[in-house]
Amino acid sequence: MKKIIKNGVIVTATDTYKADILIEDETIMQIGENIQESGAEIVDAKGHYVFPGAIDPHTHLDMPFGGTVTKDDFETGTKAAAFGGTTTIVDFCLTTKGKSLSSAVETWHQKSKNKAVIDYGFHLQIVESSDAVLAEIPKMVEEEGITSLKVFMAYKNQFQADDETLYKTLLAAKELGALVMVHAENGDVIDYLVKDALAKGNTDPIYHALTRPPEAEAEATGRAATLTGLAGSQLYVVHVSCADAAKKIAEARSQGIDIWGETCPQYLVLDQTYLEKPDFEGAKYVWSPPLREKWNQDHLWNALKTGQLQTLGSDQCSFDFVGQKDLGKGDFSKIPNGGPLIEDRVSILFSEGVKKGRLSLNQFVEITSTRAAKLFGLYPKKGTIAVGADADLVIYDGNVERTLSAKTHHMAVDYNPFEGMKITGEPISVLSRGNFIIKDKQFVGEAGQGKFIKRAKYGETLEKLPTMI
Amino acid sequence: MKKIIKNGVIVTATDTYKADILIEDETIMQIGENIQESGAEIVDAKGHYVFPGAIDPHTHLDMPFGGTVTKDDFETGTKAAAFGGTTTIVDFCLTTKGKSLSSAVETWHQKSKNKAVIDYGFHLQIVESSDAVLAEIPKMVEEEGITSLKVFMAYKNQFQADDETLYKTLLAAKELGALVMVHAENGDVIDYLVKDALAKGNTDPIYHALTRPPEAEAEATGRAATLTGLAGSQLYVVHVSCADAAKKIAEARSQGIDIWGETCPQYLVLDQTYLEKPDFEGAKYVWSPPLREKWNQDHLWNALKTGQLQTLGSDQCSFDFVGQKDLGKGDFSKIPNGGPLIEDRVSILFSEGVKKGRLSLNQFVEITSTRAAKLFGLYPKKGTIAVGADADLVIYDGNVERTLSAKTHHMAVDYNPFEGMKITGEPISVLSRGNFIIKDKQFVGEAGQGKFIKRAKYGETLEKLPTMI
Amino acid sequence: MKKIIKNGVIVTATDTYKADILIEDETIMQIGENIQESGAEIVDAKGHYVFPGAIDPHTHLDMPFGGTVTKDDFETGTKAAAFGGTTTIVDFCLTTKGKSLSSAVETWHQKSKNKAVIDYGFHLQIVESSDAVLAEIPKMVEEEGITSLKVFMAYKNQFQADDETLYKTLLAAKELGALVMVHAENGDVIDYLVKDALAKGNTDPIYHALTRPPEAEAEATGRAATLTGLAGSQLYVVHVSCADAAKKIAEARSQGIDIWGETCPQYLVLDQTYLEKPDFEGAKYVWSPPLREKWNQDHLWNALKTGQLQTLGSDQCSFDFVGQKDLGKGDFSKIPNGGPLIEDRVSILFSEGVKKGRLSLNQFVEITSTRAAKLFGLYPKKGTIAVGADADLVIYDGNVERTLSAKTHHMAVDYNPFEGMKITGEPISVLSRGNFIIKDKQFVGEAGQGKFIKRAKYGETLEKLPTMI
Amino acid sequence: MKKIIKNGVIVTATDTYKADILIEDETIMQIGENIQESGAEIVDAKGHYVFPGAIDPHTHLDMPFGGTVTKDDFETGTKAAAFGGTTTIVDFCLTTKGKSLSSAVETWHQKSKNKAVIDYGFHLQIVESSDAVLAEIPKMVEEEGITSLKVFMAYKNQFQADDETLYKTLLAAKELGALVMVHAENGDVIDYLVKDALAKGNTDPIYHALTRPPEAEAEATGRAATLTGLAGSQLYVVHVSCADAAKKIAEARSQGIDIWGETCPQYLVLDQTYLEKPDFEGAKYVWSPPLREKWNQDHLWNALKTGQLQTLGSDQCSFDFVGQKDLGKGDFSKIPNGGPLIEDRVSILFSEGVKKGRLSLNQFVEITSTRAAKLFGLYPKKGTIAVGADADLVIYDGNVERTLSAKTHHMAVDYNPFEGMKITGEPISVLSRGNFIIKDKQFVGEAGQGKFIKRAKYGETLEKLPTMI
Repeated sequence: MKKIIKNGVIVTATDTYKADILIEDETIMQIGENIQESGAEIVDAKGHYVFPGAIDPHTHLDMPFGGTVTKDDFETGTKAAAFGGTTTIVDFCLTTKGKSLSSAVETWHQKSKNKAVIDYGFHLQIVESSDAVLAEIPKMVEEEGITSLKVFMAYKNQFQADDETLYKTLLAAKELGALVMVHAENGDVIDYLVKDALAKGNTDPIYHALTRPPEAEAEATGRAATLTGLAGSQLYVVHVSCADAAKKIAEARSQGIDIWGETCPQYLVLDQTYLEKPDFEGAKYVWSPPLREKWNQDHLWNALKTGQLQTLGSDQCSFDFVGQKDLGKGDFSKIPNGGPLIEDRVSILFSEGVKKGRLSLNQFVEITSTRAAKLFGLYPKKGTIAVGADADLVIYDGNVERTLSAKTHHMAVDYNPFEGMKITGEPISVLSRGNFIIKDKQFVGEAGQGKFIKRAKYGETLEKLPTMI
Repeated sequence: MKKIIKNGVIVTATDTYKADILIEDETIMQIGENIQESGAEIVDAKGHYVFPGAIDPHTHLDMPFGGTVTKDDFETGTKAAAFGGTTTIVDFCLTTKGKSLSSAVETWHQKSKNKAVIDYGFHLQIVESSDAVLAEIPKMVEEEGITSLKVFMAYKNQFQADDETLYKTLLAAKELGALVMVHAENGDVIDYLVKDALAKGNTDPIYHALTRPPEAEAEATGRAATLTGLAGSQLYVVHVSCADAAKKIAEARSQGIDIWGETCPQYLVLDQTYLEKPDFEGAKYVWSPPLREKWNQDHLWNALKTGQLQTLGSDQCSFDFVGQKDLGKGDFSKIPNGGPLIEDRVSILFSEGVKKGRLSLNQFVEITSTRAAKLFGLYPKKGTIAVGADADLVIYDGNVERTLSAKTHHMAVDYNPFEGMKITGEPISVLSRGNFIIKDKQFVGEAGQGKFIKRAKYGETLEKLPTMI
Repeated sequence: MKKIIKNGVIVTATDTYKADILIEDETIMQIGENIQESGAEIVDAKGHYVFPGAIDPHTHLDMPFGGTVTKDDFETGTKAAAFGGTTTIVDFCLTTKGKSLSSAVETWHQKSKNKAVIDYGFHLQIVESSDAVLAEIPKMVEEEGITSLKVFMAYKNQFQADDETLYKTLLAAKELGALVMVHAENGDVIDYLVKDALAKGNTDPIYHALTRPPEAEAEATGRAATLTGLAGSQLYVVHVSCADAAKKIAEARSQGIDIWGETCPQYLVLDQTYLEKPDFEGAKYVWSPPLREKWNQDHLWNALKTGQLQTLGSDQCSFDFVGQKDLGKGDFSKIPNGGPLIEDRVSILFSEGVKKGRLSLNQFVEITSTRAAKLFGLYPKKGTIAVGADADLVIYDGNVERTLSAKTHHMAVDYNPFEGMKITGEPISVLSRGNFIIKDKQFVGEAGQGKFIKRAKYGETLEKLPTMI
Repeated sequence: MKKIIKNGVIVTATDTYKADILIEDETIMQIGENIQESGAEIVDAKGHYVFPGAIDPHTHLDMPFGGTVTKDDFETGTKAAAFGGTTTIVDFCLTTKGKSLSSAVETWHQKSKNKAVIDYGFHLQIVESSDAVLAEIPKMVEEEGITSLKVFMAYKNQFQADDETLYKTLLAAKELGALVMVHAENGDVIDYLVKDALAKGNTDPIYHALTRPPEAEAEATGRAATLTGLAGSQLYVVHVSCADAAKKIAEARSQGIDIWGETCPQYLVLDQTYLEKPDFEGAKYVWSPPLREKWNQDHLWNALKTGQLQTLGSDQCSFDFVGQKDLGKGDFSKIPNGGPLIEDRVSILFSEGVKKGRLSLNQFVEITSTRAAKLFGLYPKKGTIAVGADADLVIYDGNVERTLSAKTHHMAVDYNPFEGMKITGEPISVLSRGNFIIKDKQFVGEAGQGKFIKRAKYGETLEKLPTMI
C-alpha cells in the first residue's frame, strides 16, 4: 500500500521545504520533487504544512483521582488527541505503596488495550524506594520498555515521595538509562497552606492557586536539580508553570546538569485570574501547579524560544464540570485536579507561538514532537519526517481561523478551558503509521489501532551517541 | 548531470538516517531508500556520514594587519576550508574611517574574485557612525546582500568604535534586518595593560594573554548585550573565549534579548599555557581574545551542548611563524594576531565533540553549519540536507584516525596550532553545488568556482516567520 | 567652655542608650550616667535622641551647570544642611579639560571661604587622564587632603570621561589611597536617546527619564565595578537610583571587589511619575539618574537594610523653578539637572526609614553619618559619638509631626521636591565642634564658621587596619 | 565596688578610641578621658584593646551524641570560653520526639546550674511539630526566655525534621517573635551517601566529608530560605561552611528575606585535606558540615567582610581523640561529630581576620559579639561597651605571638584542631558583669558564677524598632 503526500510544505525541527512524500505501508520511503509511483494513492497537501505527528509526553487517561476517574479514557482521549494532530502519547502508570510495579503496569495495559487510536507508551510512577520496588525497576526498563520514572514531590500522604526515594530513583535511572520525571512542588508547605486556608474558611477555587505559591515550585525544582547533579543522573521536570521554576532549570543546565523542562499550553495563555471566575467556574481551571500571574507567560515563551524549556505536554486529566469538579464546592481541596487539554495543545502552540512570531515553524515541531521523541526513546521512528521514519504525519492548514469550544471538541468532557479562544490553524488529515485516522477533519480510524511502544533507553536515540555506523 | 550518493548515513541538525541522495545539477532532488536513476553517477558513501557542507561564519582572508597581510588568500584559504569540509565562508570586509563602505566592499570583491573555491559572502565592518556611513548602510544590506555588520569594541585607535557607533549600528540593523556582530573586549583597559606591560619589560607572548583578561571580555559582552536590549535589535558575539563572557550571553538570552554567541575550536581544546611555549613559539597562539585558563573549556562545551552558544567560527587569520609572527619578537604587541584555523575547525568539533560524547551528531551539524546558515541568511540553500537545497555535501569518514600537522595541512602557513593532535574522522569527498571539489581526499575543484552570495536579511530564512505558504 | 547634654538617648551606628555627654571646647570628653561638672552649660535633651552630626557626602554648591549656577551657595546651602541635622559636607570640585587641578581646587576654596556654616571637604573631578593631570593627583591627595576622585561616565562632550581615564584614575587611587567615585550611566547611549527624543518632538520633562533608562545605569555600574576589580582599586558609586544598578554592586561585592554604593532620599520616596506633572512642573524633578518606576524603592530600602548600599547622599544641586528650571521649556535637555535636597535628606530617612520600621536607629546613623565618615577619611573626629570625637551633635525630636515645604525650608530655592510630604521627626538643636549653630530650631551660627577639612586617605580611618596601638 | 579600666583602646562594632571606663558593680557607668573616682580599683589597660565580651551563639556542652557525651561540660566549657575572651554562650537544648519541651529545658538547667563560669542562655530544638510541641512553644519563648528554636534538616532518623515541622516552626516563631535556626544539609541524600560509602568499604574519616557534599548544604540552605520567605518569618543559618551555601543566604537577603548566616573559625582556616590525615587523625576534624575545599575560605572571609554572613559561632562539641573519636575506627559514621572550638574562636578571628587585614577591628567586634547580642536578645546588656551595659569586658593584647595547642588550652579534651597554629593576640583579663574571671591570664572566677539569661524576643533589642523614647 503506497501513498504520496504531494505538494505540501514539509516541516521538521530543522527544515522547511516543498516536496512530495512517498509512503509504503507504515513507513516513509522517499522525499523528493514530483515523486511518481504507479498505484500510489495521491494525497494533495498543496497550500498546507506537513508536520511530523505530534507527541504528547504527559497524559493521564482513565486515571482515578480524588474518588473519581478522569472522563477521558484511552479511546476518547486518543481520538481527541488525533483530532489535534497528536499521534503518540506517553501516559502515566500510577503505582501504590506496597504493591508491585508489574501489577500497576498490567492495570495500565488493561486500560489501554483495544482502545487507543494512536500509538502510546507508559511512564512509571515510583512512590517509594523499598527493596522490592528497586528490585523491580530493571525489568520495567529493560524488558517492558518503560524507560521513564516519575516521582512526585507534592501531594503529601498520597503520591508524595521523599528525597531519599527521589535520589534512589535518580541513581537507578542513571544505572539503567532511564529518565526521571518530577512533579516539582514542595508538598509539605502546600499541605500546610491548604489546611490553613480551609481552617480560615477560604474554600473557593482561587485558594487552590494561593496555597500553591510559585516559590514552592521553584524550590522543589532547584532541589530536584541539585539531587540530579549529585547523582550524575538525568531529569525531566514536568509542567513548569512559572518564571522562577524555569530559571532554576536554566541555572542547572548552565552548570552542566542534565535536566530538561516541559511546560503546558495552559501556562502559556491562561493565568491565575481564571480561578476567580464566579459561580464556581474557577474550578474548571484547577490543576497543579496552578495557573500563575500573567507576567510569567512572557518568561515561559522566551524559555521555549531559547531552549531553556524544551517540550510541551498537555497534562491531560479531564473531569466534567458538572458531576466531578463540583465535588469541591465548599472545599477547593476536593476539586479533582486537571483539565481537558490533549486536543488543543498543538493548535495553541501553532497559533500563539508560530503565527504570533514567538517561535519558528521548526521550533514548533521541535517542541511538540521531535524533542519528546528523542528524550523518551521514540526517535527515529517518531518525531520527524525522514526516510525510514513511521509515516505519522499531520497535514495542517496554517491559515484557517476557528474558535475553540466544548461544543466542537472531541474530548468526553463538558467544558473546554480555552472556550471562545480564537486561533489560527487546524489539522486537516492525520496519518498514524501510514493509515489515515483523521481525513478531511473526520475520524476514520478505529479503537485498538494504536500500539503500545516499548521505548528505547535514555540516550540511545542518536541524541547523545552516534551508533549507526 | 545527476549524481546519487548511495548508502550514506545522512545527518542534519535534527535527523540521522540511512538513505540515498539524488542530485541534479546543483540541487538535491530526492532522498530515499534505494534510489534508481539511469545515467546518474553513483557515489558510494557506505559506512560514512553525509553532512551538509559546513559554514565558517568568521574568516579573515587576504587581510592586512599590523603592517603585514595574512598568508592565506581567498584561493589557498577556501581550498583548505574545503579539505576540512567547509563549503561556505563569510569573510570580514574591513573599512577605514573617512572612506566609503562601497569602496571597501569593492576591495573585497577584488580580493575574492576568481579565487574562491567555495561560495562566500561578506560581513561589513562599521568603524564610525558618521552621517556618510549611516547613509550608505541601507544599500549595502538591501542591494549588496551584506546583511551583517561588525563592530569592534577593542583595538583602540585602530578598529575600535565607541558605544555611540555600536548603538547606532544596532538601530540601523534593527531597521534594515541586519545582524550586528561584535568583537567584545574593553579596548581601553587592554590598551593600558599592554602599554603598562611593555613599560615594565614584559614583552613575551604570554603577556598577550595577561593583558587581555577575561573580565575585559565579559564586561564588553555584557555591555553590548545591554545596548542590544535597549535598541530592541539583534547581536552576534564572535569568538567567545571564556566562561564569564558565555554567561553574559546566557543571562541576556534569559531576559529575552536577541543575542547569539560563537566560539572557536581553539578555545575548546587549547589553553593559555600554550602562549608560554619557549623560543617564542607562544607567538603561534597569539590571537584575540587570547587562549584562557583550561577550566573554561568545560563551560564552553556545555554552553554549546545546551544552546547557550550556537555556532563555531574559525576566526581564520593566518600568519607565518617565520617572517610574520616574529615581527613581535621583543614586543608581543607587534605579533600579528591570528592563526590558521579554517581547515581543522570541523574536524576538531567532530573528534572532540561527537566522538567524545560531548555533542550529538545533530548538534555537531547544527553548530558547524545549520545555525550559521539561518543566522546569516544562507538557509535553506545552505546548511542542511533537504530536497531543494544546494548539494553542498561532505562525505565523512567517522572512524579514521589521524594527526593534525602543518606537514599535511593545506593552508599556506608554516605551522599548525594543533600540531600533533590526534583526532578521529576526516572528510573524504566534498561537493559544492553538486560538483566535487574534494574527491577521495584529493582537490579536484578550481579557483573561481565559488560564487559570492547575496545573503537574505536577518529573520527572513524561515527561522522566525513562516513565509512559504 | 563646657557643655553637658543631659538625659538624651544617644544613638551611634551600634548603640542606643541613655547617658549624658560632657563637651569641652570642640570635643566630647566624657559619656556617663548623671555627669556633674561645675560651670558647664546644661542642655536638656530629655525625651530626645542625640545623633552624631550627619555627613552629606554628595553636594554641589555654587556650581555652574547648563549656563546657570546653582541657587544655593556655601552659605545658604550649609545653613540649610545644618537645619536638617547635617554638620559636614563634601562638595564636588569640578575641573575642566586642559586646566590644572590646583586651579580648580583654588576656585572651590574661593567659593566656600568665609561662607560655610559647617565643616566641609572636597572631592575632585578627574575629567581626563593627561600626563599633566595624572602628575598633579598625588599632591591633591597627599597635601591638599582631597582623597576622593570623581569620574563621570555620562554627560557626553561635557563631563564624560572614557574608560581609559576611569581606569587610570582607579590605578592612581589605589597607589595613593584615594577613593574613586563614579557617576555611572552610559553617556553614549543617553546622548543618542536624548537627541532622538528631541528630533521626534518629545520635549517634555518626562523624556528626561525616558531617555536615561535603568539599563544605562546598570551597565555603567557593572562596567565600573569590573574595572575596579581589574585595577585592584576601590570604588564608590554615587546616587544609585534603581534595583538593577544596586544588584550590580551587590554582585561585585560578593566577588570581593571593594565597591560601595550611595543612594539618595529622592530615589527612596519619589518616582518617575513625578516628571509627568502638568504645567512643566515635572521639571522640578529633573536630575540624573532620573526618578525610576516605584517598584525600585523596595529594592533600595532593602539594599540599605542589608548593607548592599551603604550611604545616603543628597546630590544637592538646586535651581529655581522660575528662572532656572524653565530654561528647559520646550526642550527637556536644557532643564538644569538637580534639586534642593540637602536639608531634608536626614529627616526623610528618619521618618520613612526608622519610623516605618525599615531601618533601625543604628542603621539610620550608620547610613547618614558613620559610614561616610569612615569612607571619606573624616572618622573618628566625625561620624560618631565617642570620647575624643568632635562634638558635632544633633538633638532630635523623634515624635514631632510636620510637613515639608518650600515655605518653611531654608534653602534658597523656590520649590521643594517633597512639598506637602508629612513626616515625623525634626532636629531641635545642632552643634558643630561644640558650638550651637541651630538652637531650639533657630539659626545661631555664622557664615565662615565651618572649616575646610583635609581628609585622611582611604583605609586610614581604622576601618581597615588597627593603627592605634 | 568600682573599677576603672584605664588607658585602653576601646573597640565597639563602630568605634575605636582611647578612654577610661568606670565600672560600678556589674555595670559600665562612665566612659571618658582621664576618669578620677576615689576608691575605685585601677586596672591598667595601656597598650591593649578593650573589647566587649565575646558571645558564642553556638555551643554544645554536656551533650550526648552517638552513644557518648561531649567531654566539656558547663564548667570546663565555659572556663575555656572565658580564657578565650567569651563571656556569654547560648547552648542548644536538645529535645526528643514524644517528650515535652519543658522536660528538656529542665534537663539543660540541671546540666548548667552551679557550673557555668559565664552567663548563658538556651536555644531549643524542635524535632517534631506535634500539637503538644506547638502548644508548648509559646511558654518557652514568653516565660522561659528561650527565644530561638533550632531545626535540623539532617541526621535522618535522629534529629532530622521534615519541611512541615520547619515551616510550622517558622510560623510559630513569626507569631511569637522568636528566631528559627537551621542546620541546613539535605539529610536524605547524606544518609544514602553514607550507607553507600560504607557498603563500598569506604570507612576512613575522609568519607565523612565526601558523603556530605556542599551541594547538600546549599540545597537545604536555599530551601530553608524559601520557606522563611513564604512564612514571612526569620531565620538564622548555623555553621555555614562553603561558598555555595553563603551565596544562597546572600541571594535571599537581596530578595528581602529576613535571614542571617553564621560561620565558624574552623571553616575559615582549615580545609578538607585535614580529614585525610593518617593514623585515623582525620577523625579529629569530623564535624558537620564537614571542612571544605580550601578555595571556599576566601568566599567566607569576604562574606563576613561584606556582611553577607554576620556572626561566628564555635559549634563547640568536644570529644577526646582517644576513647571517643575512635569509636569510629573502621566506620567513619560512628565518629562522634564535633570538635573543641570554644576557646580559640575569638583569637583566630582576631589573628587571621584583623591582623591579616581581612576585617577591621570594628567588624571583628561586630562578628564575635555585637551581632549575636542583637539577634539573640542579649543586647544592650551584652555585646557592646556603652554606658549602662554589663561590664563584660576583655582586655586584649593585640601583639603577643603564641601557638595554639592542646598542651596549653583549657578545654577538657586531648587534642586541639588548630594544634601548632601560630597566631597573634591573646586575652589578658576578662570581666563578667564587673568581676574578673580571668586576670593576667589566670582563672580567678568560680563555677556557678554565670547566670542563665532569659533573652528578649527577636527584634526587641532596638535593632528593629526604637522603643526607648
